[in-house]
Amino acid sequence: MVTNITQLTQARAGNITSEMVGVACAEEMEAELLCREVAEGMVVIPANVNHRGLIPCGIGRGLCTKVNANLGTSADFCEVDAELNKLQTALAAGADAVMDLSTGGDLPAIRRAVLAHCPVPLGSVPIYEAAVTAIATHGAVVGMSEDDIFEAIERHGRDGVDFVTVHCGVTRRVLALLKSQGRVAGIVSRGGAFLAAWMLHHEKENPLYEHFDRLLAICLEYDITLSLGDGLRPGSLADATDRAQIEELVTLGELVARARKTGVQVMVEGPGHMPLGEIEANVMLQKKLCGGAPFYVLGPLVTDIGAGRDHITSAIGGAVAAAAGADFLCYVTPSEHLSLPDSADVREGVMAARLAAHAADIAKGVRGAAARDMAMSAARKKLDWEEQQRLSLDPECFAKTRSKHLTESGACSMCGRYCAMKMVENGLGITAERC
Amino acid sequence: MVTNITQLTQARAGNITSEMVGVACAEEMEAELLCREVAEGMVVIPANVNHRGLIPCGIGRGLCTKVNANLGTSADFCEVDAELNKLQTALAAGADAVMDLSTGGDLPAIRRAVLAHCPVPLGSVPIYEAAVTAIATHGAVVGMSEDDIFEAIERHGRDGVDFVTVHCGVTRRVLALLKSQGRVAGIVSRGGAFLAAWMLHHEKENPLYEHFDRLLAICLEYDITLSLGDGLRPGSLADATDRAQIEELVTLGELVARARKTGVQVMVEGPGHMPLGEIEANVMLQKKLCGGAPFYVLGPLVTDIGAGRDHITSAIGGAVAAAAGADFLCYVTPSEHLSLPDSADVREGVMAARLAAHAADIAKGVRGAAARDMAMSAARKKLDWEEQQRLSLDPECFAKTRSKHLTESGACSMCGRYCAMKMVENGLGITAERC
Repeated sequence: MVTNITQLTQARAGNITSEMVGVACAEEMEAELLCREVAEGMVVIPANVNHRGLIPCGIGRGLCTKVNANLGTSADFCEVDAELNKLQTALAAGADAVMDLSTGGDLPAIRRAVLAHCPVPLGSVPIYEAAVTAIATHGAVVGMSEDDIFEAIERHGRDGVDFVTVHCGVTRRVLALLKSQGRVAGIVSRGGAFLAAWMLHHEKENPLYEHFDRLLAICLEYDITLSLGDGLRPGSLADATDRAQIEELVTLGELVARARKTGVQVMVEGPGHMPLGEIEANVMLQKKLCGGAPFYVLGPLVTDIGAGRDHITSAIGGAVAAAAGADFLCYVTPSEHLSLPDSADVREGVMAARLAAHAADIAKGVRGAAARDMAMSAARKKLDWEEQQRLSLDPECFAKTRSKHLTESGACSMCGRYCAMKMVENGLGITAERC
Repeated sequence: MVTNITQLTQARAGNITSEMVGVACAEEMEAELLCREVAEGMVVIPANVNHRGLIPCGIGRGLCTKVNANLGTSADFCEVDAELNKLQTALAAGADAVMDLSTGGDLPAIRRAVLAHCPVPLGSVPIYEAAVTAIATHGAVVGMSEDDIFEAIERHGRDGVDFVTVHCGVTRRVLALLKSQGRVAGIVSRGGAFLAAWMLHHEKENPLYEHFDRLLAICLEYDITLSLGDGLRPGSLADATDRAQIEELVTLGELVARARKTGVQVMVEGPGHMPLGEIEANVMLQKKLCGGAPFYVLGPLVTDIGAGRDHITSAIGGAVAAAAGADFLCYVTPSEHLSLPDSADVREGVMAARLAAHAADIAKGVRGAAARDMAMSAARKKLDWEEQQRLSLDPECFAKTRSKHLTESGACSMCGRYCAMKMVENGLGITAERC
């Protein structure tokens, strides 16, 4: 078994890899410091040895909060070109990573096409491929063998996928807890549902838990970063922070320790739908139970009734989660719960998540995060519209919105000639001349 | 002086008004309890005796968080019909209150037209009218007399305006602090800027502070609710929670006590641009310094670089503020900082603020707030799309988004036939038959 090629094993040996140098440069920090963070498992650098052209990205403590965009076909809509188009949109909007969650069409071909055009870390959920193949071949997901699951992971690794979501914590004990307590929305994770169905049918333990070492061996070979999935992710506010969710998290914490021991990079996934007031405690719990492993959250969505605007409900939850210590935000698009996202949705989703991530970075004191806001405020004070546009998160949207009602006064059309900025030209030496 | 007609004086006398009955009914609480809250000043019911057709609305402790939509012409765009159109949009989107912030056109005529079509509480900033008139008449805001300010307030009260923003806390001491400390964005409140310019030119104290009793007398006559404005509202993250802002808040707290003593209903306005991590402390501070008076926040916007999507940055801040105890959210539209909002902006602004308010209501345990989310989750589990649409915050947006990619499987087009909800039909009795 090869055991010395992951970023984690290299960092432990004190070897600063080119990936670490790249990430340290992007984060404006010392490579030595970053190397220590990787060695401790506080930071991961998802970088499959087979992913050509990857610009590495770090995720974890002290770094900027990163944003992931989920892409992928569905059974009913499976055009490769549409996926590549969405990929370009996600990248142009500033996504730090993308996941290919395809379940329709020629899955390996789609994955390879996406990888070939993807300079950022690519993630996937290999069990989708195993399950979809089993349904096509045997008519049911329960026809999937244990080997099918591990072979799918192996294929994804060989192709160059940088991080994989694996729902190792959906154990028989978790399902028993779920059954005894009940839930409003049950299991909403697709991977979790595939595994639960398989386990109940075969009356067996989760193969990804039982044969976790086999999974680790595959990850070691390609330096795949494990993203320990939350199959019991609450899909309703009412189900948040229940025994099933927390039991799974305890198990994930146990597996984080085993992965690190073996030299495999690992992060942990989190909710989900969750009341605003429970988010901080959930982040604290994840950090404690999982030894400070990077935390990757989907949302959290702070209400269940926002469909059509769940990029906003998740921006609220994501900002609060990241400010509390979450490291990686999975975007949610305006189409969540309703439809497969199109390119416009992808753009809105990435932008909303980036606003949340940036607000959190300022709150948690990530180095340099507030500088752009300071420069923007200075440009705003000067009514320097070109500079404001340049500094805005989305210059294109800025220009489009501003052009709706242009005035000659040089101010925006809201205040026009009664612009407070113009009236009080200088907060230091306030003058009334302009009024 | 009439001293017994405000909701506050009535409540103190133990008289449950028809407005209290209406608000208690809407909030599903006992009228007696509401009456006690009004008597203590913890809840205000802005209800000018001259506002015909008003459906009263309560704002404060224990009630649902309310949402205000700012409307109003600017010097460059001043069509009455456009304002009435935006008013209808705001009401249809569910705004609990609106403010007419017009600064262009025939201000009294616009205000009366809006009032005639406004069943929710209407707010205004009377100093805009005094200042705009002074500029038209004397060529400068400094030409405005003290009487001009109070007469404008009196006119607004006589017309039926339910709450007025008055920047009573912009004192000479506050301006001295502002000057000595400096700011990136200075004063961004228009009312605050008008007053500061006037004070500096005339070397006089703020008339609204110095003659606060004259203001109270007007409010008592019509039961205008005071909304003590924050003229030193930070307009940049870098300026948040500075000495000028907090000194103004201390003064507003002093004025809250004086208003209550006289029988005038009063709430307090707050920021503004503010780092996510400072919001809770600011809400706590307002509640402590201002004797628990209802807190009305603009945003807060948690980053300065979101122009074009500041409805999202303010939804993040607003949700956190309201969860921490803020009672009233002023919406921010996607056009903020860039352009006068149009009807589409008004709709997005109201919806984003309502999502924030609702998420906060769940977090702070407002009675009944979580019930709709629970019902939505149950409908989602059953794949009952009609019921989901009915329960969603914006059924129109829900339908439009869902129609983008309809599938025959009955699930949404994102997961299609691999819907986790369908795979695991029932969290209690998980079955694999469908897989």
